[in-house]
Amino acid sequence: MKGNVQKKPQISELGEFGLIEHLTKGIKLINPSSKKGVGDDAAVLEYPDKQIVVTTDLLLEGIHFNLIYTPLKHLGYKAAVVNFSDIYSMNARPKQITVSLGLSKRFALEDVDTLYEGIYLACKNYGVDLIGGDTSASVTGLIISITAIGESGKNDLVYRDGAQINDLICVSGNLGSAYMGLQLLEREKTIYEEDPTTQPDLSGYDYILNRQLKPEARKDIIEILGDLEIKPTSMIDVSDGLSSDLLHICKNSKVGCKIYQDKIPIDQSTIAMVNEFHLDPVIPVLHGGEDYELLFTIPLKLHDKINSLSQVSLIGHICKEEEGRYLITTQGSSIELKAQGWNALKDT
Amino acid sequence: MKGNVQKKPQISELGEFGLIEHLTKGIKLINPSSKKGVGDDAAVLEYPDKQIVVTTDLLLEGIHFNLIYTPLKHLGYKAAVVNFSDIYSMNARPKQITVSLGLSKRFALEDVDTLYEGIYLACKNYGVDLIGGDTSASVTGLIISITAIGESGKNDLVYRDGAQINDLICVSGNLGSAYMGLQLLEREKTIYEEDPTTQPDLSGYDYILNRQLKPEARKDIIEILGDLEIKPTSMIDVSDGLSSDLLHICKNSKVGCKIYQDKIPIDQSTIAMVNEFHLDPVIPVLHGGEDYELLFTIPLKLHDKINSLSQVSLIGHICKEEEGRYLITTQGSSIELKAQGWNALKDT
Repeated sequence: MKGNVQKKPQISELGEFGLIEHLTKGIKLINPSSKKGVGDDAAVLEYPDKQIVVTTDLLLEGIHFNLIYTPLKHLGYKAAVVNFSDIYSMNARPKQITVSLGLSKRFALEDVDTLYEGIYLACKNYGVDLIGGDTSASVTGLIISITAIGESGKNDLVYRDGAQINDLICVSGNLGSAYMGLQLLEREKTIYEEDPTTQPDLSGYDYILNRQLKPEARKDIIEILGDLEIKPTSMIDVSDGLSSDLLHICKNSKVGCKIYQDKIPIDQSTIAMVNEFHLDPVIPVLHGGEDYELLFTIPLKLHDKINSLSQVSLIGHICKEEEGRYLITTQGSSIELKAQGWNALKDT
Repeated sequence: MKGNVQKKPQISELGEFGLIEHLTKGIKLINPSSKKGVGDDAAVLEYPDKQIVVTTDLLLEGIHFNLIYTPLKHLGYKAAVVNFSDIYSMNARPKQITVSLGLSKRFALEDVDTLYEGIYLACKNYGVDLIGGDTSASVTGLIISITAIGESGKNDLVYRDGAQINDLICVSGNLGSAYMGLQLLEREKTIYEEDPTTQPDLSGYDYILNRQLKPEARKDIIEILGDLEIKPTSMIDVSDGLSSDLLHICKNSKVGCKIYQDKIPIDQSTIAMVNEFHLDPVIPVLHGGEDYELLFTIPLKLHDKINSLSQVSLIGHICKEEEGRYLITTQGSSIELKAQGWNALKDT
């Protein structure tokens, strides 16, 4: 948030209905399943031959985001995309979202427009309709609650509980970069707070900053797997960190796992940042979270098929539950996986 | 909120996943359309021959509710019911909800359990499945975001934009009671704040207090209309006040209206309270809001059919847009309807 917002138009002049009208006036519904959007007591959908998936996320200022270094447009984009990611991780496609906002007095109409620009851009990029929502004043801070609805063919859904012994564990893209982006932003914030005349030095860090501030959901991976007729046995998106999210799969599937540190994909710029911070690289990779990569398991017989994909890494395999859940480090030692992912309830 | 919450179990001991597990462990899905509920990245629904309606509401402490006089169980019940009401006002039936909570430190596990008791009771009473949600810490106050999903037959939905000239305007139950309940609670709060040794005197006011603290959605009216094969031409629930909500119908339908003060149903205990507060009775009736009664229009030819229903009052008729939108008072004067309903964005 920039300091001087007084001269911008005031939301109170519009009122709740006026604001909703203002924010949603240009909407054109693009999905056949979106029958009626904003403007009545409820939106109307129709999914005659599909299964419908529903997910919801609550994002709170001071807990999930810090407006000191998060541009509102990026925040809107990310708020939508993290919900799309949950839909993709069911092997489904996002089609609709509702957006509810709580706005404290310090937000002007222009700010809300900027936030919505990001939401609309995400909707456009992922082919999703904004079909409803709620807008309210808040006592303090910004509140964003998004519910996303998606579709899949009747037998296409992939759950967390289907991993089988000997399945391969796969992950898309690379891990730890969003976490290192956050560390960088936090460091620059601290420097700025100590001396507000300094300018944050963020040049050359575009990749990890983008991963933190403007993540993408792996729509492309779902499409590639579909084209190759690979249906994972289980899948989740890496939002809380590899360790926590892989444990979700293992617990729900009642299996163990073994993953190998040297197989876990990590970007060069992430490694550089890890070194700059003198961190153990295991931390961002296992517990970083917010990468929104897809973590999934496939039968061993699909090894060659999946191995041909440059966007996917094989990082280990599923074993019996009694064999435990371990990371084998580059040095050959075993670390038991623990749910140390980002936990908004413990943070405050 | 009671004062001493320190000795209750702490939510932080459970963590986010533990809390969700704790809150949802007893759930049994009852609707055939609910295929999979809490426990994966998304819930799964199936609606082969139906239209689906989706609505969402964000409730914020200090804006929409005051925990000084709102018991948490009532709050949970109301938070769910107001969403069901939006579904009924589409002439649909609620089937699923997702519940997201933001919890500040002062809430103990017992508090959240009590809130959920109310949500589950509402779900039970209305035949709705809780299928998902999100739980987070909040910096200040309690945040409740609910999305409700409902179903209707393909041609059964009723929108706000179908009112026709000469249609009768109908409302269920009575109006203004929730507003007078709120006035009473606010008065007793002020008295208590001035002298904390006083006990609030709420005896004999059960009806209006219940209307404010534990409203019901008019499921019964939707069932009766269905049984009588009456499909309204337009419908909305009275959440912002008769004036605001009737204006929504008129604006969306591009029509005018005339309603009569002496036809508007008002309960005896509401009148008594209006007199005690020396209020103009037009205020709670037109602008009170939160009654969650159904306001709808039907063709003139259904006059006798609707007139036989004790739960429904005929309060006026739809006219041409150029004739305006007016309340005719008991004294015979005309008051132009204005959207002065409760506006959470202007309040703060």
